[in-house]
Amino acid sequence: MKKRVLLLLLVVLSIATTNAQLTIEDVIHGGKTFYNYYPRALNVNFKGDANQLVIQRNDSVFVQSFNSDAETFAFDIKWLNEVLEKEGYGELRRLPRLTWDSATQFAFTGKDGFYTINQPSGKVELFVGRDSKGANFDLNKRSKTVAYTVGNDLYLKSENDETVLVAGNEGNDIIFGHTVHRNEFGINKGTFWSPDGSAIAFYREDNSMVSDYPLVNVEERVAKVENIKYPMAGMASHEVTVGVYNVTSKKTIYLKTGAPKDRFFTNVCWTPDNKFILIAELNRGQNHMQLKKYDAATGEYVSTLFEEKDDRWTEPQHPALFIPGKNGDFIWQSQKDGFNHLYIYSSNGQLKKQLTKGNWEVTNVLGFDKANKFIFIESTKEEALERHVYKVSLASGKMTRVTSEAGVHRVKISKDGRYALTTFSSLNVPSKTKLNDTRGKTIRTLQVVENPYKGIETGKVELLKLKTKDGQFDLNARMVLPVDFDATKKYPVIVYVYGGPHSQMVQNRWLGGVRGWQLYMAQKGYIAFTLDNRGTSYRGKEFAQAIHRQLGQPEVEDQMQGIEYLKSLSYVDAERIGVHGWSYGGFMTVSMMTQHPEVFKVGAAGGPVIDWKYYEIMYGERYMDMPDENPQGYEQANLNLKVKDLKGRLLVIHGAIDPVVVWQHSLTFARECVKNRVQIDYFAYPRHEHNVRGKDRIHLMEKVTRYFDDFL
Amino acid sequence: MKKRVLLLLLVVLSIATTNAQLTIEDVIHGGKTFYNYYPRALNVNFKGDANQLVIQRNDSVFVQSFNSDAETFAFDIKWLNEVLEKEGYGELRRLPRLTWDSATQFAFTGKDGFYTINQPSGKVELFVGRDSKGANFDLNKRSKTVAYTVGNDLYLKSENDETVLVAGNEGNDIIFGHTVHRNEFGINKGTFWSPDGSAIAFYREDNSMVSDYPLVNVEERVAKVENIKYPMAGMASHEVTVGVYNVTSKKTIYLKTGAPKDRFFTNVCWTPDNKFILIAELNRGQNHMQLKKYDAATGEYVSTLFEEKDDRWTEPQHPALFIPGKNGDFIWQSQKDGFNHLYIYSSNGQLKKQLTKGNWEVTNVLGFDKANKFIFIESTKEEALERHVYKVSLASGKMTRVTSEAGVHRVKISKDGRYALTTFSSLNVPSKTKLNDTRGKTIRTLQVVENPYKGIETGKVELLKLKTKDGQFDLNARMVLPVDFDATKKYPVIVYVYGGPHSQMVQNRWLGGVRGWQLYMAQKGYIAFTLDNRGTSYRGKEFAQAIHRQLGQPEVEDQMQGIEYLKSLSYVDAERIGVHGWSYGGFMTVSMMTQHPEVFKVGAAGGPVIDWKYYEIMYGERYMDMPDENPQGYEQANLNLKVKDLKGRLLVIHGAIDPVVVWQHSLTFARECVKNRVQIDYFAYPRHEHNVRGKDRIHLMEKVTRYFDDFL
Repeated sequence: MKKRVLLLLLVVLSIATTNAQLTIEDVIHGGKTFYNYYPRALNVNFKGDANQLVIQRNDSVFVQSFNSDAETFAFDIKWLNEVLEKEGYGELRRLPRLTWDSATQFAFTGKDGFYTINQPSGKVELFVGRDSKGANFDLNKRSKTVAYTVGNDLYLKSENDETVLVAGNEGNDIIFGHTVHRNEFGINKGTFWSPDGSAIAFYREDNSMVSDYPLVNVEERVAKVENIKYPMAGMASHEVTVGVYNVTSKKTIYLKTGAPKDRFFTNVCWTPDNKFILIAELNRGQNHMQLKKYDAATGEYVSTLFEEKDDRWTEPQHPALFIPGKNGDFIWQSQKDGFNHLYIYSSNGQLKKQLTKGNWEVTNVLGFDKANKFIFIESTKEEALERHVYKVSLASGKMTRVTSEAGVHRVKISKDGRYALTTFSSLNVPSKTKLNDTRGKTIRTLQVVENPYKGIETGKVELLKLKTKDGQFDLNARMVLPVDFDATKKYPVIVYVYGGPHSQMVQNRWLGGVRGWQLYMAQKGYIAFTLDNRGTSYRGKEFAQAIHRQLGQPEVEDQMQGIEYLKSLSYVDAERIGVHGWSYGGFMTVSMMTQHPEVFKVGAAGGPVIDWKYYEIMYGERYMDMPDENPQGYEQANLNLKVKDLKGRLLVIHGAIDPVVVWQHSLTFARECVKNRVQIDYFAYPRHEHNVRGKDRIHLMEKVTRYFDDFL
Repeated sequence: MKKRVLLLLLVVLSIATTNAQLTIEDVIHGGKTFYNYYPRALNVNFKGDANQLVIQRNDSVFVQSFNSDAETFAFDIKWLNEVLEKEGYGELRRLPRLTWDSATQFAFTGKDGFYTINQPSGKVELFVGRDSKGANFDLNKRSKTVAYTVGNDLYLKSENDETVLVAGNEGNDIIFGHTVHRNEFGINKGTFWSPDGSAIAFYREDNSMVSDYPLVNVEERVAKVENIKYPMAGMASHEVTVGVYNVTSKKTIYLKTGAPKDRFFTNVCWTPDNKFILIAELNRGQNHMQLKKYDAATGEYVSTLFEEKDDRWTEPQHPALFIPGKNGDFIWQSQKDGFNHLYIYSSNGQLKKQLTKGNWEVTNVLGFDKANKFIFIESTKEEALERHVYKVSLASGKMTRVTSEAGVHRVKISKDGRYALTTFSSLNVPSKTKLNDTRGKTIRTLQVVENPYKGIETGKVELLKLKTKDGQFDLNARMVLPVDFDATKKYPVIVYVYGGPHSQMVQNRWLGGVRGWQLYMAQKGYIAFTLDNRGTSYRGKEFAQAIHRQLGQPEVEDQMQGIEYLKSLSYVDAERIGVHGWSYGGFMTVSMMTQHPEVFKVGAAGGPVIDWKYYEIMYGERYMDMPDENPQGYEQANLNLKVKDLKGRLLVIHGAIDPVVVWQHSLTFARECVKNRVQIDYFAYPRHEHNVRGKDRIHLMEKVTRYFDDFL
């Protein structure tokens, strides 16, 4: 208990020393100063299958029963280190994230390896060591073996510390066991254990045909080129295959995926019987997906379970999810009816039924209940700005809402499917955590987080609904009014824009999802505005795909609806409108300034896409097709052809070793500006990649702030 | 005569259409607009050994006798093209620069080859063809053969069009017949014909041990690295040897120059007997020069004629100049007595005498008179701000001044040494050309150029003499007052600085050598100021070498003397002082801003040296020694260690493919600023080298101007 008092004291002190104004260090993550203003939700989990809650607080673990606030101290870092020391394992400095497999067993990953420990006995149930040079660790508890990569090579290490090189030594261009296809199509790993741990599938990516992009390290004694492989739109793509390593026979076969070799091999998974591998294969044009089945022992192609085509694009993002004990039936997610929904297929690819339906989207699948009668999903069913969790009957499709209050929920379901830990925030609720049953009833409120800005003056945040120009869609927007807002005055506006696919900046979450920097600018007297245009996510396929082959057009049209709204407000100074964005938002910033030069006085574009032909294949061609297939679209979006339209002050910023939006984008833009005698301002962050991270982010946002202060 | 009237009309029109304000296009060379404001001196020469003057005006040639303004039309481009066409040679579009070898013979270089033509007969006396892919052409009229390079290889082509590969095909790193040692030590070519044309000496430069510096071409489809060889201070230098190719035997030998191989082989020349080659060899430390003699037939070392050492550096810049008919006696230029003067040596290296002496410098040698009794030199004898020409008796050293009026003269001496064509300008004289005799008497004034700014309001230009802090030296400075200057007002100041070795920005020439941009800024209401600090040229060795091992220290101290002067003026606004410079001037700009942050509100530094360890060996080590030899000096001058001292607004600009001050300089500076949370502004010219040239220079100076307008 002593410890807890000390902690409270520290919190009080840190609030007491803050003055009533936000500084830039206050609002920018990564700075030296601790970020005080984030509502910190309780770290609470179900304690395995016990009807208990386990709370991690600093380096201690406490247990609560479901129906009482009273908590019991279970153990702390000291106890855990004693356990580890006894077995000869390395000491931990902080209590790691613990995963409770059962009421008496938790797992965690330490620097040295992967642990499963019994509590209270302190017995180490499992330890598999961790290679300090390794990456991409993938532990299989059944076989007590971890897969991992060192450089381009793939290894296995088992409980007895035996290490096997699965695949490797094919030079710099051939990479094993890493994520492929630039993490598009939901891909975020490169190894796939069979359920029983007897075999592991892995990606092999051949980059030998992909052009090098030079990144220059100026901190070497003599500036040094560090090439990356970067497959640009319309050019040669890398070639991926899938190997399968049998742990017993120690043999590897490759799935016979055949030609053309520049297809995308996505959402790899095993069938529950450990015999087959399913791959959602996508053509280079990304408009034709085939879910193919391969024999994991021989690599032979078995069948195509089903396929999906789309006039614009189809984008599988989730592997087949097998329903336990249902004979190979699996859940498949698809946007084919216009919104992302769940479908149940039989093991041979027969569609059994569409499980969810409506003008809303499934945004996440949380899993099944113990009896496998229900599936838990997160969705936009109530409202696209919110996230609620539902229990869906696999038999009837009937949906029961688990979460209650309006807002964006994150939910953990108990193993038996009967309880839910729900944490949510909404515009005016920083964070609230409750224990519910999965019929939607609240059992107990565990935590209500106080406004972290208490004592600080912050501008009022409003959520708005505007319309697309044609009236077809609502557009969600967020506005922060200046501190001490006076409707009889006129204020300058800074639009913060992202606007690209797979994003949603505006939600009914704490302060509408506002960025700290926007609060900071509101404090300085700016109105901070953000709108989610067509092309962004969770609004259905038509909304998302309106941008196809014409990036920058519908997005800017929608942003201008926001501008028209702003101009209609008596307190907006229409002569002082600025815009700032990064990456796709950089592309948007320059597009808005060149398409509507009369509107924007100042812009700050970071890491901007300038010409989509310099962008990579997987993301770029999905939206734009190849340059040869869509010359008009590429020309229309090519900001290098628009420099003469620029009127306002524009600051372009780029990380000089950006491996995503390569530096060539903004350097060719600067070049075109020079050729056309157009003045822009420019800044490069020499050792930063696609984002300026860490403490240098303060420098970045100070620069952007200063630019608006100087010129808006 | 018709043509001349037309020309005058054009000139009148171009003045008439100018308004009374200078635009930035008016003052920046390389713009689309013709630069009207340069005082154009008459293109006049002696007509070979005839006592006649030949004037080229557009595409016509006129002849004058010495004592009358009356001129006779001789021929024009049409006649010359008829001559060429008759012989089957290519047409010329403009009359080239003609060199009159005699009264009836002139030479010129056309696109297709090297011509010598008799006039009036029109007979082509000599034609040697010119390889369209060739570069570094070096014509020997005796052997009627031209040496040239294609890529890294050296060729000869003779009158009969026979082509011989002299040296080459040794890969990308071995270069033949090009200038070496980065054009330091007066080196500006790589081939050296023997006087009789029977052999040619040439440089072989081996760069295989020199590190690559990556320049990235962002205009390629995928940004492409184009490496250059860049030997950085303290690192491996290239290795140069000298080959000699015998035209008759077609054999090549190499001079046995031996070790260490990273010496500098400078000022190569042949002895008049065609037997020996002299090389001024300099150690890597650049403080020990040996003039060595080699046998041109065998390559054997013969002797060291003499040597020169210096505590700081010695810098041979002129090859031995043999006095015709004097048995191998030659003139040698040296600063060893503290000023650059002429010395006569015998062929075996015996010093016969010091020919010139005094606290002034010989700045150029124009040649001997026909009888080889006199040598004509240009010097600072009257005043370091001026250039006058003298006839110096080789026997007595007696000097007769050829030029008369105060100012900076350019002089051509007639073949017999009796006459001089002198063109000069001074602070208030745009350009004046006279025919003098070489006893200093004016025969006739040929041209007085009118003020090219007539009708334009320009600020008043003043030349000033200040003192170094210790009172030891005068410092020359130039100030431009704003147009409509009113001494009761306060004006901001922009210091334009270069400040590096081998320079002199302030001279008693037309408007003091002011840059057009300074007049432009004076028109906008700024005072434009420039001062030549210690380290710059033509003021003697002590003045030049004060900077040794401590670049940025005496130079800034001297610049601050200028600032003190400015601050003493009632009409200077001491709160609004800015500074701008490029290259060494960029180094100076940042040095001044970091050493005196309280003084400079705004700076604009282009292509700046930031850390001398990134600069090349030949220039950098001369002044700084190697980084290991002078760690304190390198640290003191390293601007990357000074970013925290920065207070004012600083704009840093760099050509992204700068092969001289490599981009690493300013990018590491930006990096250090980011790390230390210091805000600077930055701009890169992606396809420009060490200077922003051509029409983009207008963009550059508009940017710099805007920066001062925005923030000063």
